[in-house]
Amino acid sequence: MTVVYEFGNRYVTQLHTPHHIVRLLRNDGTRMSDPLVVVGGDAAGLSAASKCKRDDPEREVIVYERGRWVSYAHCGTPYYVKGEVESLSDLLTLSPTAIEERGITLHREHEVVDVDPNAQSVTVQTNGETFEQPYGDLLVATGARAVSEPITGATLDGVFTLHGLDSAAAIRAYLSDPSEDGVRTDSENVDAALVRKYAAATPPRSTVIIGGGYVGVEMAEALREHGLDVHLFQRPNQLLPPFGDAVGSGVAETLRENDVTLHLETEVEELVGDGCVEAVVADGERFSVDLALVGIGIRPNTSLVEGTGVELGASGAIATDKYGRTNEPHVYAAGDCAESRHAVTGEPDWVPLGLTANRAGRAIGQTIAGTPTSVGEVAGTAAVKAFDCECGRTGILDPERARAAGFDPVTETITASSRSGYYPGAADTTVTLVADRSSGRLLGGSIVGTDRAAVRIDTLATAIGGDLTIGELERLDLAYAPPFSPVWDPVLVAAKVLNGKFTDE
Amino acid sequence: MTVVYEFGNRYVTQLHTPHHIVRLLRNDGTRMSDPLVVVGGDAAGLSAASKCKRDDPEREVIVYERGRWVSYAHCGTPYYVKGEVESLSDLLTLSPTAIEERGITLHREHEVVDVDPNAQSVTVQTNGETFEQPYGDLLVATGARAVSEPITGATLDGVFTLHGLDSAAAIRAYLSDPSEDGVRTDSENVDAALVRKYAAATPPRSTVIIGGGYVGVEMAEALREHGLDVHLFQRPNQLLPPFGDAVGSGVAETLRENDVTLHLETEVEELVGDGCVEAVVADGERFSVDLALVGIGIRPNTSLVEGTGVELGASGAIATDKYGRTNEPHVYAAGDCAESRHAVTGEPDWVPLGLTANRAGRAIGQTIAGTPTSVGEVAGTAAVKAFDCECGRTGILDPERARAAGFDPVTETITASSRSGYYPGAADTTVTLVADRSSGRLLGGSIVGTDRAAVRIDTLATAIGGDLTIGELERLDLAYAPPFSPVWDPVLVAAKVLNGKFTDE
Repeated sequence: MTVVYEFGNRYVTQLHTPHHIVRLLRNDGTRMSDPLVVVGGDAAGLSAASKCKRDDPEREVIVYERGRWVSYAHCGTPYYVKGEVESLSDLLTLSPTAIEERGITLHREHEVVDVDPNAQSVTVQTNGETFEQPYGDLLVATGARAVSEPITGATLDGVFTLHGLDSAAAIRAYLSDPSEDGVRTDSENVDAALVRKYAAATPPRSTVIIGGGYVGVEMAEALREHGLDVHLFQRPNQLLPPFGDAVGSGVAETLRENDVTLHLETEVEELVGDGCVEAVVADGERFSVDLALVGIGIRPNTSLVEGTGVELGASGAIATDKYGRTNEPHVYAAGDCAESRHAVTGEPDWVPLGLTANRAGRAIGQTIAGTPTSVGEVAGTAAVKAFDCECGRTGILDPERARAAGFDPVTETITASSRSGYYPGAADTTVTLVADRSSGRLLGGSIVGTDRAAVRIDTLATAIGGDLTIGELERLDLAYAPPFSPVWDPVLVAAKVLNGKFTDE
Repeated sequence: MTVVYEFGNRYVTQLHTPHHIVRLLRNDGTRMSDPLVVVGGDAAGLSAASKCKRDDPEREVIVYERGRWVSYAHCGTPYYVKGEVESLSDLLTLSPTAIEERGITLHREHEVVDVDPNAQSVTVQTNGETFEQPYGDLLVATGARAVSEPITGATLDGVFTLHGLDSAAAIRAYLSDPSEDGVRTDSENVDAALVRKYAAATPPRSTVIIGGGYVGVEMAEALREHGLDVHLFQRPNQLLPPFGDAVGSGVAETLRENDVTLHLETEVEELVGDGCVEAVVADGERFSVDLALVGIGIRPNTSLVEGTGVELGASGAIATDKYGRTNEPHVYAAGDCAESRHAVTGEPDWVPLGLTANRAGRAIGQTIAGTPTSVGEVAGTAAVKAFDCECGRTGILDPERARAAGFDPVTETITASSRSGYYPGAADTTVTLVADRSSGRLLGGSIVGTDRAAVRIDTLATAIGGDLTIGELERLDLAYAPPFSPVWDPVLVAAKVLNGKFTDE
């Protein structure tokens, strides 16, 4: 199929600037459909669909989602399990109806199984049927999936990975006393059979979490809220490795204070049981258990594009340019399945986080609608709450990674007060900064503490976005008010001390 | 007097780079004292003294303070009056003993009454005596004073300006039930006679605050905590004018909700009474009152240098360069008596705030000790708490001021959630951004809300420090975690909307 575009008054067969695409024409000159086709109905996909439709209301926009859930807040699931969020529906950002009201055609339980970039067409399967869907532009927003390898036994009953609302609904049903509030099928989308099965089961007493990343740490808090025995197994020697040592130690201390039993540097080999999980085997030891949460990592969902000519990057996620374009014309990728550019290294990176997905989706929608818009860079900024402990991180903290990117990292960790010492509520706040020795440039930082620590990470994320040196960071005019910050904010104290290292050496 | 310096192996009479000054010599070649003399024993003065002594332990450092109090946290006084801070001593950063232990010679109740930059000498008065003190370097850190003009009657009993610990001690003594905890003379420095006098008086019932700036707003909270009737009079039509309209409205609403009666656009002419204040006269009306706090402004204390050749800037504060130097050699100025350079305009400005004073003092101490260090720029970043309302501001918010500085300001105010909407505790957060139309540069911003709003101002202060455009601000990779921030932080939402204005126009 030769695709002909209307470009001003001319018809052409090749276009490189997406905002000049007006309409697709058939060879005989009649207009054909040139929809924006989006694969995946979550953050990136629906941000793109919504923005494109808003900016170019004439454009047909079709979203295919293989599951039943669309536009849900994955990051909210631990709080649903904990019980802080009452209903699964609260986690839905947009209902299917609201999506359709935006003029977007939404097809759920439709799986896109193949892409032909030359034909500008995708193959869709639903309910045993298969059809071809031509596209003018395609956005691959297939997300990521939780992995459980190399742990065996992850398919036993009572074992959950932490990705998706059905899993969250089942865990909460399992935790709830059956008499408590009946079967929680508060959303029409929920896998009711699964929920009923766990609601009917005897609630667990002994639980394990395998993996001490964000979700593992958040789930530890959620399970303790239910009064359960919680054992957390982590293969590395610290929790939250991307947050660095200071945060890892702070969170470990907090978890222990809240009666979570930590097994650091402990590798889980196997989950065993007869139908239901009964024990976890780690470092040769066996621990009895009747609920296991596996959160040892996620991988980008790229199988759709493999073999299609759409290239993956070194991370294994789909390679994209600054507009979210893949190497194939009219094929974009965004969200947890795609790479982004790192603000510090300028190199491609895979940072599967919510803002990255939303922002890239929105930018791609805008680009496709006619205004080329950069998807932005990522700094890997993240925050996590563990009981009363607040943590944040941004940029590059790992010295080895900094060196690999050509920097000569210098690190400093300080602990300072969150408020004027005399003001009630002042709490220790620990700040780690990493800067490049030769340029002084701030490369990364982390913050941990109990008093508004997480929000302060945005100061460092902004400093990284502005390419500030450690000296410039030290001289920032940050706010001082006794209830919120001491004269020298902990970030400034850290910058002052690290800058002193530069001067001294 | 000809002053001769030892400069490496040579003796010279002129030096421009302070870090090369090693020792002062008399004409006959014998060594004379070349102390750093500091006038004023608070934030700027003691920061300079401490840093100079630490970096150059051989250098003699002498501090003259005309009062009894040194190194106290002025910003903490409202919380002392409120009762949140128990003891005045809690507000002292450094005791006189701790200062002396740093090797600094501290003379309290010594007033420096004249400066002779040619002779490099100051005139000191204490206890009826007068003497000359030569200096190698001089730091003028005389601070600011509260003004009560043009209001008459401010010297009546029961009327207080809000500057200094004696005033705070007297107010708290006046508010306390005499039977409660006796006379509060918990610091040796307190004016015990004044405190006893107010402790013995009948506690006030009806109070007024004249002036709706930081301290006025903070004192309204403090007085309400004591269960008093509080009337706040403010001549402009909003509270906290430097914070802009959105913050002013938010704080006014909060104060009203907390039963503070606001009289905006109301000018107080007179305080009347016979010995004790009995009424306030405002716009021709008379309100009965038995405690009045006057917080209508402060002015830099510059009388020491007037007529000495040390120049003042347009603001009326002492003009300084990037190292805190005045126009006279070896004479520095810092803190509330001195100007700084504004980060946005690059022009001199008078921003009498705690961090400015501490940072400039420290930098000057370091410069004098041999390492020339910039005092840094100020963005006027400030935060204030009014009951549960948190406010922050930075940069230039006032469109007229922006235009006067050569910018073409575009403003946007938005309200967004502080956390993911489903997460408990999410609260409205209102962000105002001002940017320059032609360059897109962020000029200023304010934030108001109840959930960690004040701390977020540092994101904007950092963006201003990094000269970010509104587009760069929109693309920052800020932290997202449901308990702390929604996917699109309120700051990003504001940037997105304001940036949209740029694109649309």
